[in-house]
Amino acid sequence: MNYKVIRFVLGWVLKLEGCLMILPVLIGLIYREKHVGLLFLIVAVAAFLIGELISHEKPDNMAIYQKEGFVSVGASWIMMGLVGAVPFVLTGEIPKYIDAVFEIVSGFTTTGSSILSNVEALSHASLFWRSFSHWIGGMGVLVFILMLIPSGSGGSHMNLMRAESPGPEVSKFVPKVQNTAKILYKIYIFMTLLQIVILLVTGMPWFDAVCITFGTAGTGGFGVLNSSIASYSIIQQWIITLFMIAFGVNFSWYYLIICRRPKDAFRMEEVRAYLLVILVAGMLIFCNVRDMYNGLEETLRAVFFQVGSIITTTGFSTVDFDQWPSLSKTILLALMLIGACAGSTGGGMKVSRILIVCKEAKEEMHRMVHPRSVRRVRMDGHVIQEDTLRTLKVFVMLYFLIFAVSVLIVSVDGFSFDTNFSAVCATLNNIGPGIGGVGPTCNFSMYSTWSKIVLIFDMLAGRLEIFPIVLLLNLETWKPH
Amino acid sequence: MNYKVIRFVLGWVLKLEGCLMILPVLIGLIYREKHVGLLFLIVAVAAFLIGELISHEKPDNMAIYQKEGFVSVGASWIMMGLVGAVPFVLTGEIPKYIDAVFEIVSGFTTTGSSILSNVEALSHASLFWRSFSHWIGGMGVLVFILMLIPSGSGGSHMNLMRAESPGPEVSKFVPKVQNTAKILYKIYIFMTLLQIVILLVTGMPWFDAVCITFGTAGTGGFGVLNSSIASYSIIQQWIITLFMIAFGVNFSWYYLIICRRPKDAFRMEEVRAYLLVILVAGMLIFCNVRDMYNGLEETLRAVFFQVGSIITTTGFSTVDFDQWPSLSKTILLALMLIGACAGSTGGGMKVSRILIVCKEAKEEMHRMVHPRSVRRVRMDGHVIQEDTLRTLKVFVMLYFLIFAVSVLIVSVDGFSFDTNFSAVCATLNNIGPGIGGVGPTCNFSMYSTWSKIVLIFDMLAGRLEIFPIVLLLNLETWKPH
Repeated sequence: MNYKVIRFVLGWVLKLEGCLMILPVLIGLIYREKHVGLLFLIVAVAAFLIGELISHEKPDNMAIYQKEGFVSVGASWIMMGLVGAVPFVLTGEIPKYIDAVFEIVSGFTTTGSSILSNVEALSHASLFWRSFSHWIGGMGVLVFILMLIPSGSGGSHMNLMRAESPGPEVSKFVPKVQNTAKILYKIYIFMTLLQIVILLVTGMPWFDAVCITFGTAGTGGFGVLNSSIASYSIIQQWIITLFMIAFGVNFSWYYLIICRRPKDAFRMEEVRAYLLVILVAGMLIFCNVRDMYNGLEETLRAVFFQVGSIITTTGFSTVDFDQWPSLSKTILLALMLIGACAGSTGGGMKVSRILIVCKEAKEEMHRMVHPRSVRRVRMDGHVIQEDTLRTLKVFVMLYFLIFAVSVLIVSVDGFSFDTNFSAVCATLNNIGPGIGGVGPTCNFSMYSTWSKIVLIFDMLAGRLEIFPIVLLLNLETWKPH
Repeated sequence: MNYKVIRFVLGWVLKLEGCLMILPVLIGLIYREKHVGLLFLIVAVAAFLIGELISHEKPDNMAIYQKEGFVSVGASWIMMGLVGAVPFVLTGEIPKYIDAVFEIVSGFTTTGSSILSNVEALSHASLFWRSFSHWIGGMGVLVFILMLIPSGSGGSHMNLMRAESPGPEVSKFVPKVQNTAKILYKIYIFMTLLQIVILLVTGMPWFDAVCITFGTAGTGGFGVLNSSIASYSIIQQWIITLFMIAFGVNFSWYYLIICRRPKDAFRMEEVRAYLLVILVAGMLIFCNVRDMYNGLEETLRAVFFQVGSIITTTGFSTVDFDQWPSLSKTILLALMLIGACAGSTGGGMKVSRILIVCKEAKEEMHRMVHPRSVRRVRMDGHVIQEDTLRTLKVFVMLYFLIFAVSVLIVSVDGFSFDTNFSAVCATLNNIGPGIGGVGPTCNFSMYSTWSKIVLIFDMLAGRLEIFPIVLLLNLETWKPH
């Protein structure tokens, strides 16, 4: 293991986190929250200095192989959570450190699960930091950093990007990884600004517009009001619905549109399946809940807002969907598992994984009927490599294994099965609220410290797609050889 | 597709079912239930005659390839359910045909889920038929029939056995399939007789001893009393516990013991893992529920009876485990998913599949740390073939897919999530009772006809390990080519 390069990357991440923390300091200045602003500034400066100290010496060997990629990413994200939680504790707004870590990891992983019952009591600086962490975590920190640090010979920065980007395969738009990262961030920033401007035009206060947009863009789900999105206007709710769904689309789709290849874009199987699932789930729930709301528009808005929020794993809510009938709640749980498209900011297993699994099941059936068949699984016309298929299937297995073990450990606290099941589902898929005791009107504060640690693990495992986090815990990774 | 050979096999299955139905007729005679006995006789004779008519003409080409194997097995089991349900409806003991089909499919698939609230109201003949169906389904009908019908050139009877036997790989003890089937049935009959004799010695009435043994041997779970096993004596409960666990062991283990190869037997990883899981789950639940019972023996008995009953997917109960705390219930749900050993009469995903999946996940981790590694997944020292691994993983995927879709459809009826989740879990894994609304003191009668059809499908898919049943529904299977 190339420890020096990992230390170097960790240092850069710490420096970046320090820089990013200057924004809440500015918010503190604007809203005259001097005390809070000062504490954020202290943490920011400390993080930057320690980061500079660690990454000062550039390692001779900058080679990043798969192992180093996974370990750097896993360790970076854990560190970001541990450091990012400090201001909450210092300001006293979240007195317990484990709760603060839960809250900020929930932010960075774009989960949106909260241990707070009253978010409106937070200072503006803290509210901003919470929402901003969604935006940072949505596209990824390492993806940003690899634009800054020089690449080495042997190994590749691709291994950093691969470890942090969601989906079974990483699409490289252009040969150079750094340039791909730049294109991704350009699309991300453009769409974020677009949403902020549109929300401002509809008359939303600027602080709300910025924070809500961060929550939408990262598919996170932290809001600035206790009622989440319910108290915003009808038109604002529809705008947020559309942007949530848009941020769940594979960013390759936007790249194809920019490159004026609309034909290729509209042929993308994953995006078509994703939109189809939203439509079908929406229709089914619409039929199931139409007696609960007044009129067509209100029902459609309630249904598609929650469907968009859940499948993209954002986790905003405008109604208490825990009150919906059994079928609708089960559909929402299924959407939680599916998740958004690969290569988007959304979580879950990703539509493309489900698609590939279904295709492979179909191929297996085909092989049973025609034993000599040599057909291969294809996606958008390309044959999927055996290696990708194997890793994907191991991913799904590990996913269910972690799911089952987490539910087991969390159930020690004695809450009901549907609460525990949906708590794990909501954190492992980076959604936010679940059903039952962790429904949209409740929060996660009642769980014990042990359960919170498990749920923090689940959030990280979900956002980083399991391998980087599991590899950190694997003793073999640390063995010298 | 060789339709003639499928028709031939179906005819034989029907004839066999007719013959087996003579036993409840005899029970009807003994208990002077003339009316019921006569109706069973009519159905038995009719089944035999129709079977004889269908299978009279032996097809020229007896080749059974994988496709024909799967289709014969799938179709045979559906037919057995449809025919086996008729007596219940004729006697009026289960008036609705769908309920009768649910009950007997639950019997043949060794599930043990019931739609009856008062089993003690049934006639002895019907009670016997219900329990006997467990014994028949436990080892398999086609496995029995392939001892009787001649093999053809090309293809192999192995394809019949493979389609009906549980587990990722079928162990052939001896080169000839017919002889392997004979050895399996000999072990099965010996152990069944042993349990009956031991239960008789402890003073259990002979009718109860026989029926309970059928339920244990097939890991089914139908009892003859409303209280399941709770009203039997302490020693009888322990005996049943031991035999449940014994019938969940891979039958290869007994074959190795018979062949005086105890070293190989005790080295079998699956059996060791299976016993370890029972021990660990038992200890955890013991700590969790020890305040609920009086004294060590009563607690141990309650815990290990339910653990043995659930992991082997038998489904007998001595206590209402739905009253246990959350952790214990969740452990039971996890045991339901794991299931018994491959090559036993138990259901679930099977211990060996879970073992292989865990080993492959470990190998994948290893490959990430050492990219040039070429290590393979091994079980009991043998390398597992790539084909087996691929099919196994597709099995797991399909398993979860069917699980999710079933829960979705069943939730239309509006019952709670834990009820629906555990109803699907209990049927797809052939266990019997679940938790919540389908707990050990409840039954499945409240579900709608549609939900019952889905649950019947799940029971068949679980017992036949998905492929035979799914292949029947696959249009491609029926396409001429």
